[in-house]
Amino acid sequence: MAEPLFDRLCLLGVGLIGSSIARVARQRSDIARTVVAHAKTPATLDRVRELGIADVVEADAARAVEGADCVVFCVPVGANAAVMASIAPHLKPGAIVTDVGSTKMSVFRDLAPLTPKGVHLVPAHPMAGTEFSGPDAGFAELFQGRYVIITPVAETDPAAVEKVRELWNRCGSMIETMDPATHDKVVAIVSHLPHLLAFTICSTADDLAEETKEQVLKFAASGFRDFTRIASSDPTMWRDVFLNNREALLEMLARFTEDSQALGRAVRWGEAGFIEDRIQRGRKIRKGLIDRKQA
Amino acid sequence: MAEPLFDRLCLLGVGLIGSSIARVARQRSDIARTVVAHAKTPATLDRVRELGIADVVEADAARAVEGADCVVFCVPVGANAAVMASIAPHLKPGAIVTDVGSTKMSVFRDLAPLTPKGVHLVPAHPMAGTEFSGPDAGFAELFQGRYVIITPVAETDPAAVEKVRELWNRCGSMIETMDPATHDKVVAIVSHLPHLLAFTICSTADDLAEETKEQVLKFAASGFRDFTRIASSDPTMWRDVFLNNREALLEMLARFTEDSQALGRAVRWGEAGFIEDRIQRGRKIRKGLIDRKQA
Repeated sequence: MAEPLFDRLCLLGVGLIGSSIARVARQRSDIARTVVAHAKTPATLDRVRELGIADVVEADAARAVEGADCVVFCVPVGANAAVMASIAPHLKPGAIVTDVGSTKMSVFRDLAPLTPKGVHLVPAHPMAGTEFSGPDAGFAELFQGRYVIITPVAETDPAAVEKVRELWNRCGSMIETMDPATHDKVVAIVSHLPHLLAFTICSTADDLAEETKEQVLKFAASGFRDFTRIASSDPTMWRDVFLNNREALLEMLARFTEDSQALGRAVRWGEAGFIEDRIQRGRKIRKGLIDRKQA
Repeated sequence: MAEPLFDRLCLLGVGLIGSSIARVARQRSDIARTVVAHAKTPATLDRVRELGIADVVEADAARAVEGADCVVFCVPVGANAAVMASIAPHLKPGAIVTDVGSTKMSVFRDLAPLTPKGVHLVPAHPMAGTEFSGPDAGFAELFQGRYVIITPVAETDPAAVEKVRELWNRCGSMIETMDPATHDKVVAIVSHLPHLLAFTICSTADDLAEETKEQVLKFAASGFRDFTRIASSDPTMWRDVFLNNREALLEMLARFTEDSQALGRAVRWGEAGFIEDRIQRGRKIRKGLIDRKQA
């Protein structure tokens, strides 16, 4: 097996994603010689120690990053700026700082101004996850066959990008690069809007009269069930995602609302052809996924 | 094993649901002595013959129902009235007419006035399905552990209801009874609205600029994918469901739209508490499903 990519890899946050990276680094010797894990709460720190998925477990973020040649932000994107402010003076010169957040414009906005000269910021987004969260939710296979989008900008150091690419390559992922604005637009439609819709339909159902709500729960298994799975994702993470991809998300919600109202109007006026066309387009998108073996 | 429930069971339509009933009746000797299958197209008739899932395959609907003591409408709900008009004079006195449609008010509206005196109409809705359609899509286990909602009205013959209940019981289903209006409202939120949203998000994505659309397809596997599965369901069936549950569906869409706009507004104005509350409610609904072992 190849040489380790990093001498010291520091994970800031050990939830679903962070603990999965830790587990990959435990399984393979070619990721890092030493894995340092930092978490905010004592309970998480204790659990990570019990799980034995990191070499060093460190309660203090500043101390955690000391000497690390790669630091991965695995915290909700809303926490990025505060965490960076506390660690910036302690980052090793030449270190790579990367992240796993679902928004990328906000990562540049929050982290770039605080990144010390000589430290390389390479934002990235592994498009992998489950509806579960916390250090117990992670598993080493999470990233296998999933896309990771790296969003370098003109100033980004190519050697640092290559290192982050190789990190994800060794996690089993397929890597794409994209500019941050395009990334945020794509994930707004493929991921953030679906989550917003799933949260909303659960709220709408929850608001129905007590009797109907009971029925809703009883019969939700058909159709609705998939939405509740999506809707059970981590609240802090998703709150931050929505707030940090506001423009793209609201644009997609506006487009979606226009389209759903048009379909509602067709239902009201019995426009069968319009309804069929919309259903056919759903099938077309699905077929595209099947053709790409992503279904 | 018990005596067959019916001497002659006639399935009008042999798609996903009809062919699954046929397969159950093939596996178990206590459903019917003879299963008659009718389909509209020669291709489907040929395929049903090849599959060998019915004793009699009959192209003429009127001839298919002759002598049957139970006739099951398994056609898109929009076709009910026309099919009933063609078979009504040929129904055996005392026969039970039931159906498997996803709307129940419309079934009463379309079938009750055409049902001959002495024939018993017992609408039912097996809440089971996949995104696939046609006689090859069916399988005998489809109904196992799934709810079937029977919607009798005051005039409905109790003995006929009992027979339909026993039919679904022998298919492995759990049976609930409900009035047709409550049924239509419940399925509007648990099934029809989710499908409308899924079709819509696929159309919205399809409308994005050519470049973004490609990205959408590439990265749809996370979050969006579940929606495309729902969205790939049978177009004719779903067009008919929407058109035949118009009032309840539009009411649920209106409620949903209000709620999604409220969440969008909270995103725009950074109301973190409101957003978190909505996400928490999603988790609560999900937890309800898990507690009921329906997740």
